[in-house]
Amino acid sequence: MEMKGFITFEGGECSGKTTVINAISEEFKKRNIDFIVTREPGGIRIAEDIRNLILDVKNTDMTPECEALLYAASRMQHLTQKVIPAIKDNKIVLCDRFLDSSLAYQGYARGLGMENILNVNSFALNYLPELTIFIDVTPEVALKRMSNKDRGGKCDRLDQEKIDFHENVYKGYHELLKMYPDRIVRVDGNKSLDEVVNDCKNIVLKYIGR
Amino acid sequence: MEMKGFITFEGGECSGKTTVINAISEEFKKRNIDFIVTREPGGIRIAEDIRNLILDVKNTDMTPECEALLYAASRMQHLTQKVIPAIKDNKIVLCDRFLDSSLAYQGYARGLGMENILNVNSFALNYLPELTIFIDVTPEVALKRMSNKDRGGKCDRLDQEKIDFHENVYKGYHELLKMYPDRIVRVDGNKSLDEVVNDCKNIVLKYIGR
Repeated sequence: MEMKGFITFEGGECSGKTTVINAISEEFKKRNIDFIVTREPGGIRIAEDIRNLILDVKNTDMTPECEALLYAASRMQHLTQKVIPAIKDNKIVLCDRFLDSSLAYQGYARGLGMENILNVNSFALNYLPELTIFIDVTPEVALKRMSNKDRGGKCDRLDQEKIDFHENVYKGYHELLKMYPDRIVRVDGNKSLDEVVNDCKNIVLKYIGR
Repeated sequence: MEMKGFITFEGGECSGKTTVINAISEEFKKRNIDFIVTREPGGIRIAEDIRNLILDVKNTDMTPECEALLYAASRMQHLTQKVIPAIKDNKIVLCDRFLDSSLAYQGYARGLGMENILNVNSFALNYLPELTIFIDVTPEVALKRMSNKDRGGKCDRLDQEKIDFHENVYKGYHELLKMYPDRIVRVDGNKSLDEVVNDCKNIVLKYIGR
């Protein structure tokens, strides 16, 4: 079931999601569009606690199955307490990552299988986004950006993963494009950030009819 | 798929599971039977962290779906890091609660549906216990025991639930007895604790062929 007004943003590390979401937020403010910005995993207290558990560097022995289920748990809390109430209030919800991240990262890249991830996320299938923007950045470009980017000394567990993993995430997203051609719109993320921002902004504004 | 040597104990609050498991442990020690005792949710560090999140009194706004997924996450970590290695070492695993608790508590009593709980636990279905002892205590007897029992001022979230909930858990377990007649053995838990302990001990010893 798709939820009208629920828009998610997907892509690998350093795909520019945050910048894009910020730019769209500014545009929405100018146009007096009622909206909220949120992210997965997290967005509210219990979900952020779960996020901290997942990303804690001391938890490198976490099994892929446990990780996938924690993402699903965080998702349900976030959906119930933040996304669904906003949609009911007729707000647009701009969400950084959702189910597709689990499908690409845990289902495809970690090898748990897309079908298994859909199973453990069966509760969330009742609340799918109506539009998902996939910012398509090749792993080569993303890794280059990662090494340039000032990470401020912060290093969470995902950053320790190997290049292979990022390449598999990329392949996973391309599988999703085939699986959900109506819901997921691909944006070329290898262009300049300004161009990417503009492309995403235009798609979202067109989608909400402005 | 059932795992040889994996024995779980199920029942509502104050059913005497802990006393039974302790008594069987003592018997195993006397007989030089190689075994471990563990519990769900928890049993190892990451799983205990998840358990703490679930039982934290400040998390009363946790959704049933989130709770069910956290139990499933904790289960997978515990299975992978503790249960499966012990079974591979030819140890008997005595485990306080497992998947049936999720089915009775979240699936039945919280109304999420047994089928949905099986879905979110699809990873765990590859590692079912070979024997499950259900200590059958009627809600009336359990609640009486609860009010008498010295809880030492400790009060976790489940203790705040209403009597209706305990009655539904009870009904849930009886549904499970019908669903899994070969795996689950019912023991009358309304008898004296000595009798319950003896009944359980005999079933387990017979099961492992001693």
